[in-house]
Amino acid sequence: MTLPLRPDLIGLEPYGAPQLEVTARLNVNENPYAPPPAVVDAIAQAVRKAAEGLNRYPDRDFTALRADLAHYLEVESHVDFVEVRNIWAANGSNEVMLHLHQAFGGPGRTMMSFAPTYSMYPEYARDTITEYVTLPRREDFHLDLDAAQAAIREQQPSLVIVASPNNPTGTALTLDEVRALLSAADDVEGGCVVVIDEAYAEFRRSGVPSAATIIPEHQNLAVSRTMSKAFALAGGRLGYLVAHEPVIDALRVVRLPYHLSAVTQAVARAALAHHRALQAQVDEIRAERDETVAWLREQGYTVADTDANFALFGPFEDRERVFEGLLAHGVLIRVTGPEGWLRVSIGTPQEMALFRSALLEVTA
Amino acid sequence: MTLPLRPDLIGLEPYGAPQLEVTARLNVNENPYAPPPAVVDAIAQAVRKAAEGLNRYPDRDFTALRADLAHYLEVESHVDFVEVRNIWAANGSNEVMLHLHQAFGGPGRTMMSFAPTYSMYPEYARDTITEYVTLPRREDFHLDLDAAQAAIREQQPSLVIVASPNNPTGTALTLDEVRALLSAADDVEGGCVVVIDEAYAEFRRSGVPSAATIIPEHQNLAVSRTMSKAFALAGGRLGYLVAHEPVIDALRVVRLPYHLSAVTQAVARAALAHHRALQAQVDEIRAERDETVAWLREQGYTVADTDANFALFGPFEDRERVFEGLLAHGVLIRVTGPEGWLRVSIGTPQEMALFRSALLEVTA
Repeated sequence: MTLPLRPDLIGLEPYGAPQLEVTARLNVNENPYAPPPAVVDAIAQAVRKAAEGLNRYPDRDFTALRADLAHYLEVESHVDFVEVRNIWAANGSNEVMLHLHQAFGGPGRTMMSFAPTYSMYPEYARDTITEYVTLPRREDFHLDLDAAQAAIREQQPSLVIVASPNNPTGTALTLDEVRALLSAADDVEGGCVVVIDEAYAEFRRSGVPSAATIIPEHQNLAVSRTMSKAFALAGGRLGYLVAHEPVIDALRVVRLPYHLSAVTQAVARAALAHHRALQAQVDEIRAERDETVAWLREQGYTVADTDANFALFGPFEDRERVFEGLLAHGVLIRVTGPEGWLRVSIGTPQEMALFRSALLEVTA
Repeated sequence: MTLPLRPDLIGLEPYGAPQLEVTARLNVNENPYAPPPAVVDAIAQAVRKAAEGLNRYPDRDFTALRADLAHYLEVESHVDFVEVRNIWAANGSNEVMLHLHQAFGGPGRTMMSFAPTYSMYPEYARDTITEYVTLPRREDFHLDLDAAQAAIREQQPSLVIVASPNNPTGTALTLDEVRALLSAADDVEGGCVVVIDEAYAEFRRSGVPSAATIIPEHQNLAVSRTMSKAFALAGGRLGYLVAHEPVIDALRVVRLPYHLSAVTQAVARAALAHHRALQAQVDEIRAERDETVAWLREQGYTVADTDANFALFGPFEDRERVFEGLLAHGVLIRVTGPEGWLRVSIGTPQEMALFRSALLEVTA
């Protein structure tokens, strides 16, 4: 019996980091703080109410959730132009990215990004028959802007996606860098959408702006976000995007109807209503992040400047050995990035103390 | 400013029936009964527990949910071969179908179905650059099996998808019909997966079997189901599929990681635990369906034999006028199927009484 599996999928394994029971899970950039009791209560109450009407299909346009997201962006990123019509959302920013590729990618089209970067990007392209090309980042993980502009003009991608802060390096873009990408994108025949993937935006250091602030000036700029990290809602799966209305309208055409369940909408809205309490946890993580980076540098490691809730550090002659050694101490981090580097998510102070002591022992 | 929208998407509108506030919503085949209080309680409690850990990503393989679905299929369809490895699930059977097309469709490949049928099928094909072809059903909405077999052998589709009970006609396949399709599919070079879309399976009349019962004999047969209808969970978005392990493994490669939220998993499991109570509501709907069909026939209408929670009836010289007339009475049904036919979902006895009296007035 032959199955007609697409030839380019044969032999591939599903994406995913190990899901292990360890003392310190510092491998997938989760928020280490469980939702506070007030948020748990709010979620349970909101879902109870939604459950009473679950025999009906959900609001296909999730208008109330979009309004809440628009309001949140106004508060968080000081953008005052965002209306319901400028917001999109899906089951994780994964699905937002899939929609972007379904609308603007496809056979004969190219998505461009800058390596090292998020390891799901090639999968979005593969799943939508879009060509995926990457340009190398500079040694400090910032973009080589001249090379980036030249490559956009030469390769004519219909999508450029840059994570900022970048995963796994933590590197954020300046607004001038975003503008430089947009300037090159304007020279792409047929149009090019520039997507800034701000999954980790809330963790950025003070003074680092969001690309969302310059959307009014750019019809082809889209900024994606997620509630997985800052909202401690990785298990709730809610990613979203802000852009001009024509971009959103294109995503509406390719989305599956009712893609956001009534429960997902209720959970996200309950969490959004508590964004100030959750931002306090984000501030704790940012402080812990800065301390972790400082400590790693004191130990002599190179650490990429990071605006995210993780740090890329190295170099190690045998990073697999260090990874396994930490795991033996109950500390699960991630082997990712260029050869010799490791990435650690920022956990609680207790988890980071365990990480530090384990790293000292493993590298003694 | 030009957006690089895929050329075949230009000018398209998003899929979706009207979401209107009316007395009787009989247009999208929803279950008219809200989840009973015990189910609402179970859902709220399960989500409260899940909410406490929402900062973590969900179980990517949703193993506990798959085990519950396997158990349910054993009870509902008397299939005893189903293990966790035979089960797939996603955000609605919409997304299950998308995964099937991503794995087994794509450029240069064909998906075949039999019209009139579910209006989302061409969208799954379009979104995955798969060619969509349909063969017409017979006048009684059953398949023309000889023509179907010949078309499969000639057109060599990699996917054949048949809804049973079919939407919008309500027509169910016999097992011999499924076997005939599989026999032709065996002659497709490179392989062909036959998917029986049993979204409405629980409403089938007594004695009508599920195609799931013959999966052990067929490596390339897959049966999809949904919790939207029988479980009164359209707002919860949980579709699933049963097949041999190689089919499931292919879907695992193309799914987005963590596509099923921890909340969705919790909600579905809570509802599954109450399947007997929910099946009692299904039995009420089946009885009301049979009465509605009998009444419509008494009025002189032709009604397609239906194993679903809706009925296709006609003919009308001006079906739009009848649709609008019913809507003016607060009864929202659906203009779908061949010219002259209308589809009504089966609601509560009160809703169907309103439908009957409104139809008499509109056609008086």
